[in-house]
Amino acid sequence: MARRSFSRRLLAGSAAVAGVTSLSVASAPHAAGVVAPAPRSAPKTAPAGGRVRHMKLYAEKLADGRMGYGLEKGKASVPGPLIELTEGDTLHIEFENTMDVPVSLHVHGVDYDIANDGTRLSRSHVEPGATRTYTWRTHLPGRRADGTWRPGSAGYWHYHDHVVGTDHGTGGIRKGLYGPLVVRRQGDILPDKQFTIVFNDMTINNQPGHTGPDFRATVGERVEIISITHGEFYHTFHMHGHRWADNRTGLLAGPNDVSRVIDNKITGPADSFGFQIIAGENVGAGAWMYHCHVQSHSDMGMAGLFLVAKPDGTIPGYDPHHASGGKPHSAP
Amino acid sequence: MARRSFSRRLLAGSAAVAGVTSLSVASAPHAAGVVAPAPRSAPKTAPAGGRVRHMKLYAEKLADGRMGYGLEKGKASVPGPLIELTEGDTLHIEFENTMDVPVSLHVHGVDYDIANDGTRLSRSHVEPGATRTYTWRTHLPGRRADGTWRPGSAGYWHYHDHVVGTDHGTGGIRKGLYGPLVVRRQGDILPDKQFTIVFNDMTINNQPGHTGPDFRATVGERVEIISITHGEFYHTFHMHGHRWADNRTGLLAGPNDVSRVIDNKITGPADSFGFQIIAGENVGAGAWMYHCHVQSHSDMGMAGLFLVAKPDGTIPGYDPHHASGGKPHSAP
Amino acid sequence: MARRSFSRRLLAGSAAVAGVTSLSVASAPHAAGVVAPAPRSAPKTAPAGGRVRHMKLYAEKLADGRMGYGLEKGKASVPGPLIELTEGDTLHIEFENTMDVPVSLHVHGVDYDIANDGTRLSRSHVEPGATRTYTWRTHLPGRRADGTWRPGSAGYWHYHDHVVGTDHGTGGIRKGLYGPLVVRRQGDILPDKQFTIVFNDMTINNQPGHTGPDFRATVGERVEIISITHGEFYHTFHMHGHRWADNRTGLLAGPNDVSRVIDNKITGPADSFGFQIIAGENVGAGAWMYHCHVQSHSDMGMAGLFLVAKPDGTIPGYDPHHASGGKPHSAP
Repeated sequence: MARRSFSRRLLAGSAAVAGVTSLSVASAPHAAGVVAPAPRSAPKTAPAGGRVRHMKLYAEKLADGRMGYGLEKGKASVPGPLIELTEGDTLHIEFENTMDVPVSLHVHGVDYDIANDGTRLSRSHVEPGATRTYTWRTHLPGRRADGTWRPGSAGYWHYHDHVVGTDHGTGGIRKGLYGPLVVRRQGDILPDKQFTIVFNDMTINNQPGHTGPDFRATVGERVEIISITHGEFYHTFHMHGHRWADNRTGLLAGPNDVSRVIDNKITGPADSFGFQIIAGENVGAGAWMYHCHVQSHSDMGMAGLFLVAKPDGTIPGYDPHHASGGKPHSAP
Repeated sequence: MARRSFSRRLLAGSAAVAGVTSLSVASAPHAAGVVAPAPRSAPKTAPAGGRVRHMKLYAEKLADGRMGYGLEKGKASVPGPLIELTEGDTLHIEFENTMDVPVSLHVHGVDYDIANDGTRLSRSHVEPGATRTYTWRTHLPGRRADGTWRPGSAGYWHYHDHVVGTDHGTGGIRKGLYGPLVVRRQGDILPDKQFTIVFNDMTINNQPGHTGPDFRATVGERVEIISITHGEFYHTFHMHGHRWADNRTGLLAGPNDVSRVIDNKITGPADSFGFQIIAGENVGAGAWMYHCHVQSHSDMGMAGLFLVAKPDGTIPGYDPHHASGGKPHSAP
Repeated sequence: MARRSFSRRLLAGSAAVAGVTSLSVASAPHAAGVVAPAPRSAPKTAPAGGRVRHMKLYAEKLADGRMGYGLEKGKASVPGPLIELTEGDTLHIEFENTMDVPVSLHVHGVDYDIANDGTRLSRSHVEPGATRTYTWRTHLPGRRADGTWRPGSAGYWHYHDHVVGTDHGTGGIRKGLYGPLVVRRQGDILPDKQFTIVFNDMTINNQPGHTGPDFRATVGERVEIISITHGEFYHTFHMHGHRWADNRTGLLAGPNDVSRVIDNKITGPADSFGFQIIAGENVGAGAWMYHCHVQSHSDMGMAGLFLVAKPDGTIPGYDPHHASGGKPHSAP
């Protein structure tokens, strides 16, 4: 997994120091966590929001023709860095376009005025070589002055270009200009690890078919999956051996939560959702496939592995030199 | 926005006079409301239902080749008139076919016996020049005799032809024979303005690509969006700067409502949903795009503007003579 | 309706005798229930789970080229037998491959270790002529050691081949190797009748277009619909005259359940959901169509009838020799 993480911990840590700070890239991919036993103590939860944060973001061309967002020059990734906020936070993004075509940063879910829409229509895109600060705000749920209930900003959201190729960013999205945004509510359970899976046209995270990406965890770790769809096609996101609730958090709130529990979900372009699973819960370690369940899509390689290891690091039945969730086999 | 509205207020008002009455077309499109400040007093809510209502409805060919439903002869629109009921209401629709082909009126969500199904199979369609009364009933939620819970009729529903072209109304729907139906529960919050957005094949409300429709409101107004999909394709409905709850009302019931809050939703033919937003809440005035987020669909013009004005009527950054959510721009 | 049922009653009954037993095919199709009046007494509910069950399952080629799962040799059906469990149950399936190609049994929703995944990657498929026991486990909802809430296994799930044709079972699924699995929670309401409707590519239950399948019930019966999608395309599942809640059970939990009530739902391959309706509730007897609402799909024959009879067995307006939900009619 080549992509880099703008991790919650770094973000929270940096922000805690200065309140307003510029944030740097996580030095290790967020899949490389520690081995964790099955959880027995109460998980960590999101603290109160309300901070004002600053970050730098670059739009860049990658050597292989892709385009990506990155936290440092020359280090763009596909998907772009994971950005995490808590309801009440404000984020100022100093956005630099290092490419030779106009680009933008359009975000879903959070609050931004029309000058931060990231569209050509609102003249909020960025010319080649130019820099622009985008401001995203979030808010807590609460009562309006009229007594009605206003939802908060919490959700599994995402950001993407809205300008490259067409006025809807079709070219930019196709080449990789997208990334995940998670906004938490105070008290939301924090995961041990996070993985972003973007079904973009017939690819996962713009990787070639039959090459993953694969994700690693250890039995008992609390893993957060952020699922985003982009492009032209509908998909169905399926995981083997694990399932989640079809609601805001992907977690049932308790015994009275009537949300459907699912392991397969239809999605279309710009849909996003997320959930947390306990790796291997009730099923144990293994090389668990995840894939698009549209038959031709999985056959063309829209599949990867969720590699769940035992505490000793072994994965029963998994031979990394031979088998892969994405690799085709001869069929009868 | 050319379509005409069979508005809730007129319907409620007329019905209040006579209990049983024939209703006429609203004289102004329902986008032309008054300027409203941000709401501070409790919003109006739906009164108790239980009335018996009568209306006339015509199926007509429009001059441009479209077909539409209308409340008066020669005044059909696409979408057809917005019909609103409250749980417990009964509606008798005297339906006249002014066209030279058989047509019908098939409705989703409410109660109708098989003779009111609006299908050829049940012989409940209408021959050219003929008239037929369709009766739609609604009911409140409550306990059945066996103690189980029976849902009420409230919902964002719709009606359409089931006969023209094929036995599933493929030709009639394609040409515009569809319209919105809202059934409220007593106590449901009433909006200030209502807009119907139908993704019908590659059009919005059967308008040509890149021409909208655009919708106008003022910051602080409570705007109801009724989203319906028809035809052949799946779509993802997306709004900029605004979001809603993915549940019955589109509004969170309160702090314990676990519904996902979204700004993008996959839909397929005959799916419908609705929600209310406070125009410009947390984001201010602006020309906010709404569009299908399937990239080729938005590029082909499935986009319009939600024009949110300041109380003085101005829309920051919006030049109606130059920019349009639906108008293509040259791309890099 | 040609398919055979592995019915809840038989399963419960057999299991009650022996605790661990081998189960046989229901002798009558489960559509052939008794005439029931509108329900007045509390419905039966699911008892506590926790049993260990055994069954035989065969993968077979049918004479017409289809492939199916069956409970007895030579009696495979499409869809495969309905399997029902209650949370806490364990099911051991002795699975025999009578075909000349490798096949597997992959299940959604329930617990299975990687050796029971039913994929070639995990070497858990079955060679021609071989037998393998698959074990599926289920669990109750409850608190984890860390205090968080763990969902139970209840849901409308399904099983299918993951090996024939491709490593995702595209060939097996296309030919009919799929079936329904219902896992109930103690206290869940039990239906009077159950029907499984699988939208598999452009067919329903692999039947040719315009031939149904049709399903029969009597006004007042509690009917459970299990909807599964497979193959390549997205669909929208629509029923005339009946609607359901878009949550785990398809039934509103009570007046505070905010789930959307719908009569049309977009689905993609491997999505599944279920619900219960009271046949003819508020609408009466009739030949009620159900169909995919993608216009070309219904026009090509993805439609059937839900035949709701009066207590005397008659269906108003229904002529079985002339009209069919799936039969095409000449259009204007």
